[in-house]
Amino acid sequence: MPKHNTRATLAFLLRSLHRPTLLPSATPSSRFTLHDKCNDVVRPDYHQVPSFFNPLGNFAQTTKWGVGIQQKCYGSMAGLVQRNPRFSKLNDDDVRYFEGILGAKNVVQDEDKLVAANIDWMHKYKGSSRLLLQPKTTEQVSQILKYCDSRSLAVVPQGGNTGLVGGSVPVFDEVIVSLSSMNKIISFDKVSGILVCEAGCILENIISFLDNEGFIMPLDLGAKGSCQIGGNVSTNAGGLRLVRYGSLHGNVLGVEAVLANGTVLDMLKTLRKDNTGYDLKHLFIGSEGSLGIVTKVSILTPPKLSSVNVAFLACKDYSSCQKLLQEAKRKLGEILSAFEFLDGQSMNLVLNHLEGARNPLPTLHDYYVLIETTGSDESSDKQKLEAFLLGSMENELISDGVLAQDINQASSFWHLREGISEALMRAGAVYKYDLSIPVEQMYNLVEEMRSRLGNTANVIGYGHLGDSNLHLNISTPQYDDKILSQIEPFVYEWTSKHRGSISAEHGVGLMKANEIFYSKSGETVQLMASIKNLLDPNHILNPYKVLPRSLIS
Amino acid sequence: MPKHNTRATLAFLLRSLHRPTLLPSATPSSRFTLHDKCNDVVRPDYHQVPSFFNPLGNFAQTTKWGVGIQQKCYGSMAGLVQRNPRFSKLNDDDVRYFEGILGAKNVVQDEDKLVAANIDWMHKYKGSSRLLLQPKTTEQVSQILKYCDSRSLAVVPQGGNTGLVGGSVPVFDEVIVSLSSMNKIISFDKVSGILVCEAGCILENIISFLDNEGFIMPLDLGAKGSCQIGGNVSTNAGGLRLVRYGSLHGNVLGVEAVLANGTVLDMLKTLRKDNTGYDLKHLFIGSEGSLGIVTKVSILTPPKLSSVNVAFLACKDYSSCQKLLQEAKRKLGEILSAFEFLDGQSMNLVLNHLEGARNPLPTLHDYYVLIETTGSDESSDKQKLEAFLLGSMENELISDGVLAQDINQASSFWHLREGISEALMRAGAVYKYDLSIPVEQMYNLVEEMRSRLGNTANVIGYGHLGDSNLHLNISTPQYDDKILSQIEPFVYEWTSKHRGSISAEHGVGLMKANEIFYSKSGETVQLMASIKNLLDPNHILNPYKVLPRSLIS
Repeated sequence: MPKHNTRATLAFLLRSLHRPTLLPSATPSSRFTLHDKCNDVVRPDYHQVPSFFNPLGNFAQTTKWGVGIQQKCYGSMAGLVQRNPRFSKLNDDDVRYFEGILGAKNVVQDEDKLVAANIDWMHKYKGSSRLLLQPKTTEQVSQILKYCDSRSLAVVPQGGNTGLVGGSVPVFDEVIVSLSSMNKIISFDKVSGILVCEAGCILENIISFLDNEGFIMPLDLGAKGSCQIGGNVSTNAGGLRLVRYGSLHGNVLGVEAVLANGTVLDMLKTLRKDNTGYDLKHLFIGSEGSLGIVTKVSILTPPKLSSVNVAFLACKDYSSCQKLLQEAKRKLGEILSAFEFLDGQSMNLVLNHLEGARNPLPTLHDYYVLIETTGSDESSDKQKLEAFLLGSMENELISDGVLAQDINQASSFWHLREGISEALMRAGAVYKYDLSIPVEQMYNLVEEMRSRLGNTANVIGYGHLGDSNLHLNISTPQYDDKILSQIEPFVYEWTSKHRGSISAEHGVGLMKANEIFYSKSGETVQLMASIKNLLDPNHILNPYKVLPRSLIS
Repeated sequence: MPKHNTRATLAFLLRSLHRPTLLPSATPSSRFTLHDKCNDVVRPDYHQVPSFFNPLGNFAQTTKWGVGIQQKCYGSMAGLVQRNPRFSKLNDDDVRYFEGILGAKNVVQDEDKLVAANIDWMHKYKGSSRLLLQPKTTEQVSQILKYCDSRSLAVVPQGGNTGLVGGSVPVFDEVIVSLSSMNKIISFDKVSGILVCEAGCILENIISFLDNEGFIMPLDLGAKGSCQIGGNVSTNAGGLRLVRYGSLHGNVLGVEAVLANGTVLDMLKTLRKDNTGYDLKHLFIGSEGSLGIVTKVSILTPPKLSSVNVAFLACKDYSSCQKLLQEAKRKLGEILSAFEFLDGQSMNLVLNHLEGARNPLPTLHDYYVLIETTGSDESSDKQKLEAFLLGSMENELISDGVLAQDINQASSFWHLREGISEALMRAGAVYKYDLSIPVEQMYNLVEEMRSRLGNTANVIGYGHLGDSNLHLNISTPQYDDKILSQIEPFVYEWTSKHRGSISAEHGVGLMKANEIFYSKSGETVQLMASIKNLLDPNHILNPYKVLPRSLIS
C-alpha cells in the first residue's frame, strides 16, 4: 500500500472515530419527515408556510392559462388547456344523488374546504372544483364513477395531494373524489410480510404499523406524512429504497381498482407468483388515476433490519463516482440501501442557503456521494463498509470521507443531500428537471447545460445515482423567459437522444402530458391512448393529464 | 440454554463438520443443468430420452381430442378444441411470400424438422403445423405478422419450447414463428448491470456471458440450456431466484414487441425509473405470446456474489417450517437466496425411486427445508447462517440438519429437492398441480387431499415455500379417471377459496385456458379479453390459449 494512501486511509478512519460532534445534530425523526428524499422537494404544510417558503413570492411571473389553471412553474409549460365542452356542469340533482350515496357530510361544497383540494401544495396548479366527495367503501367509489360516467361529469381522484406535476388537482371543475376516508389496514401476514390496505392509508401510518410488526415498507418518501398509498401506487412513486427493493411494479402484489363505468376489478391477490392471464394490475400502477381509481392494494414488505450505516464521501471526478457505484454494488452487495450523488455546486448552494448546514469534510470537493447500508448484523455490516471504504481510498476512488457514528450524524449527512431543494428555493428562481439518464452520460448533461448557459445561471446536478436519476436544477436570481428558451426543448431533446426519461419518478400529470413523445415512441403512446379509450371511453378520469391532449379529445 | 438443546446443537455442528463425504457427489455443473428447480420437472432432450424417461410409456392413456391435439396430461384437461374456421389454410403463395422475406432456408417445410416444433417436450401437446419461420430481425417478424394478420393465418410464437402448459406448440396448423435466430446480445452496461439482448438468446448463454462480466441473471431455471429469454419473459418464468430478486415484472426494464398487425413497439428502455405514461411492457410479460411477439428485452442484472451456503434441515411439523421461514427472512435477511420445502412423502419417494439419492440425515423426518444463502463475504455469511441454525435448533424449529461443506454436498442436497419430479415419473402415473397458496394454508390442501384419497394414492407436497408456491403431486401406479374426478375440480375450488392461483409459475397455455376463472374475477378476465381484442383483433396470435375460448371466438 503506498504511503500517501495509508495516510489518507488513516485520516479517514480517524475522522470517523474522533469527530462525532462535527455536525449539528438533527432529531432522528426529523430526518425523513421534513425533507423529501425521493421527490426532492421540501414538503411543508402550505397552510403553515415557513417564512422562507413563499412560492408566490419566489415565482417571478404568474400567468393565467386557459380557464381555471394557473401556471407558475418553471420548466415545461402545461400549455393552453381548454375545458372539454363534452363534460357536463355539476347541478343540484347531482349533488343530491351523491348525498344519497355518501350522506351529506361526505359531500363537501364549502368553499373554504375546497380551497385545499383545488390547489397543489407548491401552488403551481389550481382548479375550480365545486364538489369534493369522500367515499368510505369501494362500492361507493363504484356508484360515484358509474353516475359520473353516465352524466359525463369529469373526475379527479385525489390522495394526499403531494404530487409535483399537477396530477392530483382539478384543472377546471372536475369532481374531486378523495380517498382519504378509505384508510383501513385490512390484513397483515407476518409469515409472508404481505400487507393489504385501503388506498387512503397515509404512508407514514403504514410505516408505523409495519414497524410494530417488525417490517418496513419497500417505499419511503419525504411526503410520507401526507401522501397516501393509493396515490403512491397510482404514480408509481420511486423513493429512496428503490435501489434496494425495486419499484412498486415489483412490490405491489395486488390492486383493487374501479373503472370509469363503475366496474370493480378485484385483482387484490396476496401471492408472489400468479401466472393466470395478463397481469392487469400494472396498468393501474403509474397511470395517475387516468384508467381507474385504485381503492385497495396488497404489498410485499421486507423484514426490518437492525443495522444502518451512512458515509459521506468526496470524489475527485464524476468518473470516480461511477466506479464507486460499481464497487459498492459488488462489495457491499446485499446491504447497499442508498447511493446518492451531489456535485460541488449543490454543496456550495446548501452551505450558503441552508440553515445549519456545515461541510462534514475539512475542504470543499467537486463531487460527493452519500452511501447508506442496511443489514441484519451490525458488526459484520460495519466491517464490510469499512473494508469497502478503505479499499476505495486505496484505489483513489474516494478523496476523503466521514462515516456517521450515530443516528444524529447520519441525519446530518442526509440533511445535506435532502436540503438541496430547500436551498434552491431560497436562492431565487429555479428551473427543475427530474430525469432518468444512463449513468455514464448523466453528468454530461449538467456540464453541457453549464457551458450553454455560461455565467447567467447556476447549474447544479444531484440525485439518486444508484437509480440513474438526475435532478438537474438551474438557479437564477430572477425568472427569465430567455433562460427558459435556452433550457427547453434542449433538455428534453438531449434526454431523448440518450434514451432517457423526462420523468423518472414524478409522473407526467398535467405538466408534461404533451411532452411524452420525448420518452416514448409514437406507436407506444398511440397504444396508451387506445387503452385509455378502452377503459375510460368518455375520458372522465383525470382529464387533460398523462397523455397528449391531441390524442384524447 | 437447556442441556438437550445444547446436545442437539452440538450434534448438528458435528455433522456439518465431520460428514463431508456422506452423500454421493454430483458435479457442480450438473446441479442446475439436469433438473428444473423452478418448473419442477426433469428436462432431458427428448431426442435422447434416458431409459427411465419414457413419457409415452409412463402415461397410461392417450386420448385424441378434437383435431390435431393429443392430450396425455393428468390434471386439467384442455377440453375439446375445434379449429377456428375463420383462420385461412396455408397455401403456396404464402410460402413464396415468406421465402421472399426470409430466404428459402429460413422457411422450413421439411416434415422431419417440423416434428420437434410441433410437439412439446413432455409429449403432452402435438400440433400439425406445416411451416416454421425463422426470422433474424424485428423487421422480419413485423413483416411476417402483418402478412399473417392480413391473410388470417394463425401464428404460434416459439422460443425454446420448454413450456409445461402447451403454450409454445401449435394446436392445429398455426404457422410457427421461431425466435431462435434472433440470439444476439446487444449491449451490456457494467456500471448499471443492464443487459439488452434479442429474444432468442438461450438463458444459459446469457448466464455465461454475465458470469464473465461478474454479474448474474435474476432468473435461473432448470431448462436454462434450452429456454430462451423471450419465452421466459412471455411466460413470466419464476425460478429459484425469485425469493431473492423478485419476478420479471420487477427485473425486466424494457421490451420490444411486435403486435399482430406488424406494429413494432419500442419499449426497450434501459432505465430503472421511467414514469412517462402507462408501463405497457407489463402486458407482454406473462401474456404467453398472445398479445404480441417479444423480440428484444432489457434486464437489470445483479453483481455476482462469491459466497454460497446450503443447509438441509428437518422440522417436526409444517408449523415449524413456516416459523423457520419467518426467522430466516429476519435473521438471514439480505443473504437468503432460497427456501425450499419437501414433506416426508416426497423424501420417501426420492429415496425409493431416484438413483443415487441418500438421506443426508441419520433418520427420517416428516418435513424438510433446504435453505441457501448467497452473499459477498464468506466468513460473515457462514457465521450468520450458523448462528441462525443454532438459534433455530435451540428454539426447536429444526429437529436435525446438515450444512454443506463443499459444492458437491450442496449439489447433492439440491438433487434431493430437484429429483422429486424425476422420482414421480418413475413411480407411475402422476397428477401434477402448480399452485400459489398463502403459506399458512398451503399444507392444509396436501392433508385434505390425502384424507380425501385415502390409500388409493400417494399425495406429496413440496415446492418453493419462500414464494408460497406448492407443487401438489398425486402419484398412483396406473392412471385412473376416478382418481382424477376426486382431485378435480376440488383442487381448483380449494385454491380459489383460499385466494390462491391455479398457475403459480407455469402459465395458462392451452391446458388451463378454461380454468382461469378459478384465479381471476369475471370482470378481470373480461378486461383481458377486451385487451386481446384491442391488440390482436383477428386473434391470430397463439390462438386457443391463455383466455377462455368462449370469450375469444
